[in-house]
Parts: sequence; C-alpha cells; structure tokens
Amino acid sequence: MFTGLSAFPLTPTDEKGVDERSFADLVTRLATAGVDSIGALGSTGGYAYLTRDQRARAARLAVEAAGDVPVMVGIGALRTSEVLAVAEDAQNAGASAVLLAPVSYQPLTDEEVFGLYEDVTGELSVPLCVYDNPGTTHFTFSDELHERIAALPNVGAVKIPGIPADQAPDRITALRGRLAEGVALGVSGDQFAAGGLNAGADLWFSVIGGLLPEECLAITRAAAAGDTARAEALSARMEPLWELFRRYGSLRVTSAAAEHLGLVGSPNLPRPLRGIPAAAKEEVAAALDSLTSSRRRS
Amino acid sequence: MFTGLSAFPLTPTDEKGVDERSFADLVTRLATAGVDSIGALGSTGGYAYLTRDQRARAARLAVEAAGDVPVMVGIGALRTSEVLAVAEDAQNAGASAVLLAPVSYQPLTDEEVFGLYEDVTGELSVPLCVYDNPGTTHFTFSDELHERIAALPNVGAVKIPGIPADQAPDRITALRGRLAEGVALGVSGDQFAAGGLNAGADLWFSVIGGLLPEECLAITRAAAAGDTARAEALSARMEPLWELFRRYGSLRVTSAAAEHLGLVGSPNLPRPLRGIPAAAKEEVAAALDSLTSSRRRS
Repeated sequence: MFTGLSAFPLTPTDEKGVDERSFADLVTRLATAGVDSIGALGSTGGYAYLTRDQRARAARLAVEAAGDVPVMVGIGALRTSEVLAVAEDAQNAGASAVLLAPVSYQPLTDEEVFGLYEDVTGELSVPLCVYDNPGTTHFTFSDELHERIAALPNVGAVKIPGIPADQAPDRITALRGRLAEGVALGVSGDQFAAGGLNAGADLWFSVIGGLLPEECLAITRAAAAGDTARAEALSARMEPLWELFRRYGSLRVTSAAAEHLGLVGSPNLPRPLRGIPAAAKEEVAAALDSLTSSRRRS
Repeated sequence: MFTGLSAFPLTPTDEKGVDERSFADLVTRLATAGVDSIGALGSTGGYAYLTRDQRARAARLAVEAAGDVPVMVGIGALRTSEVLAVAEDAQNAGASAVLLAPVSYQPLTDEEVFGLYEDVTGELSVPLCVYDNPGTTHFTFSDELHERIAALPNVGAVKIPGIPADQAPDRITALRGRLAEGVALGVSGDQFAAGGLNAGADLWFSVIGGLLPEECLAITRAAAAGDTARAEALSARMEPLWELFRRYGSLRVTSAAAEHLGLVGSPNLPRPLRGIPAAAKEEVAAALDSLTSSRRRS
C-alpha cells in the first residue's frame, strides 16, 4: 500500500464534535478519484485534537467510505498507553496500516523514541509508517535512529518531511541506504513532493491530495512515468497554494480551501485552532480558482 | 498566593497508573516544609501524560494533602474543550489557582493563543497563571501578547522561563511594565531562580523545590530579605544538580533524585518517557549527597 499518492483528508471538527458526514464524503471523494491510499487522522486530520472515541469512530467511517482503497490511520498520542489503545481501535476498524509520530511534551531522547516504536510495533498486526514531522513533534530523527526503527518488525514505511528539490536525490539515496529492505520511503511537504518523487521516493503523503486528488495524482503519475519535467511543471502551477501554505500553515489553508469548495462547514478546526482571517480566505479562493481555470485550459 | 516559593511535585506514574500514595506524601512533605504554594500537575507533575480522570483525582489528593497551603493545578491540554473540562475538575477539587500553557501540536498563532486564554479565563472562578514554557509548548510569547493576555479577567500571574542573571533585571522590569496591576511575575528555570528573585520577581516556580523545599526556601527567603549574595551562594551550591538538569532535563533528574531519596518507586515516569541510565543515576545520587553534606556543614 505504500506507493503512489497517499491522500490525507481533513477531519472537519468544531466544538460540538466531528462532522462525520462531511468526513465520510471527503474520503469517498478521494477513493472515487483513484488515490492509492488514504491517510485518515494524520496531522491534517487533526488526530492530536480528538478523543479516543472520536478517533475510533472516524477510523471506522474512513475504512467504510474508502471501499477498496487501503486506509492508513494515525495513532500518535503523548502516552505510549494511549498509542497502544488507539492502535487497537484502528486495527479493529479495518485499517490497512497505522501512522505513528513521536508526539512530545517533554522533549524526547533517541532511546525514548526507539522505545516507543519498539513497544508499539510489537503489538501490531498491520504495517506501521514512521512519521517524521519535526514541525509538530519537535523531535528530530537522526539517520541512525531511522535505521534502528526501520529494522523493527512491522515497520512498512517512513514518511519524511519536505526536502528542497536540489537536495532530494542525495537525501533519498542516503536514507534509503539505511532502511531495511522492503521499507518504503515517502515524502511530505507538498511543495517539495514533485522533487521527491522525481528523486525516487516511493510515495507522496499529501495534505492537498486530500482535497485536490486529481491535481496530485497527475503529478504522481508523471513522476512515476519518468516525466520529471511534467511533474515539476504541474507542481509549479500550484505555487499560489504553496505560498499560502508557507504563510498560514497547510492545515489552515486546506481548511479554508475545503470551505471554499463547499465540502465542509465553518468553523471546521477544533479550538484553540482557528480559521485564517477573511482576507486570507479570499487569497485561498483566488488560488483555487486560478488552478481550476488553468486545469480547464490544459 | 503568587509569592515566595511555589513547589512543583512529581506525579509518580507508571504503566499501571499514578502512585497516589507517594504523590500525596510528596505534597504533604512540601506543606510541612512551609512552601508558599504547591504547583500540582505542572510539567514536572506530568499533566500532559495523564487522563482527565487521573488529573481530577490527583488534584483532589493534592488539595487534601496540602492542608492550608494553596494549591495551583495545571490545566493544559491540546484542545480548548479539554482545558475547560480539566479546569472545572481542578476548581471542584479545591484548587486555589490554575496554570495554563499553550500546549501545541500544530504551531499556534498569537491570535489562537489569545483566544485560548480568552475562552478559558471567561469560565474561571479562581486566578489563572499564564505558563510560558517554549521548551515544551514550542510557542514563544511576545511581550505584546503577554500584555494582552494579562489584561484578561482572572489572570493572576505569569510564569516565565529562566533568564540568565545578567539579563534578569532588564527583562523583569520590561515585562512587569507590560502586565496589568496586580498580576504577579514569577520565574522558572531553577538554575536562574536566585538571579530572577534578586531582580525582583514575585515568586519562583520551582521543579527542585518540589523535592528539596528547604534548600529552595532558603534561597527564596534570602532574596526576599535583600541578601542577594546569600541567595546566589545558596544557588551556586546546587550547581551539580543544575549541570545534570542541563544534560538530562529537570524532570528526569528530579525523578531519579526522588528515587534516590526513597520517595518514589521505579519506574515513576509514564512511557514513552524513561528514567536516565544507571550511570547518570549515580551522578544524581552523588550530587544530592554532596548537597546534604554541605547542608550539614553550613
């Protein structure tokens, strides 16, 4: 399942709870578009802000709504005991894989992070994707630690942060040399994804892919076909969105974009998170509209 | 209540749960030593790793065990709705104040953090202490934001990170000029506390004060009496501990120190956190023993 485009939908949530209907519709929309897998309850899916019960229900909904498309479910939490509980819920819901970031409050040591993956992988019956996201966890993996963790049973993939295109080939070659055979290497950081795929990453874990699957599939398929120039050109067309991601964060921009497309209500982020200001929402709408009209032209 | 020494006990916890008996004993020990207040379920008290029920029970135990000493209870959580629930539990338990850090997963904007404090202070009937701890929350308060938040109803104090002694007078004067009248300013970062108190901070929020209250009260009382040199000298005597704090983090060192003093069992930190290696535990024991023998000599 760790190939191509893994699309991460929002889990629209307000102070009353999860908008389950919109969430299921978002997942169905991705499955219909033909994404290779769905990453439910990732950072974009706000897993860290949901209760165990909300997460279990959302995992079930995602698996049902995805049909034949495999679903990976985020299982991160501050406590190992909570990770184990959420992992069991995800597996019971029918998840094909789980995604685990070393969420921190007290800064974690390498031994603590290794211990977390050791404790969790020992209890799994589906593959785990190691989620390396220093922007939210504030933990930085060394290559040596990636190597040790990837050698644990049930590790199926590693999801790394975005790498600027000029550094991607070296970085991906170096890290792949560390990973046990059969462990897939996937890139995040949507703006850098074309470069990562062109440099040989196995898949793209995509935020905007959870909302604009066609655009992201086109990039992914171009890279897979070896048409590196087309992959880069299709990605460059999305630069207005990447620019907004850099300014407001990918989650808030994707939230506003989903609102603009009429796919979710407002608000759709759990407090303390807030939507972006009205003026910024207009910029998001303009970026989406320019993308749609350029799609019509191409 | 925001004066002198506020001592933060550990909440000894393992995979089976909170060791409530040891926790209550730690609190009673602090009250007996005469600390000015107790900070239950702070970062040292592992609030972020406990369930709502564990936190509610620990808050009740702390208030009971503290007798006449006022107890401040940590109410931080990733979701505002959870903060509000935990705050209600803390107030029902008899907390005299609450402590709130802007815990983050998605990096928070200034407006989101202001909104969090606005949402929470509006629901409180006890004073709130703003908890500024970028080492765990990864949020950096601007002075302007401190000023806005301190003007909200029910804000009673601000807890700031450690400031090197040479910068403390300027920093404390500058920040105090921003805070609404009646809002206390307290320092953290044990190694820098003497300097902060000597520079006019109202109180010391202390990690090691939760374990070695006599030593910390001596520093606090010397500073309050204007004997800045004695406060600095008493703090300097604890340098072997400060050095270990810098190397392993104050929580892990305090955990090992409490073990060495026979006050808690082992393990006493919730996974993924782990105790420090055996060799480091020996260093902690040696630092404590040298402090005890220097206390006997003085």
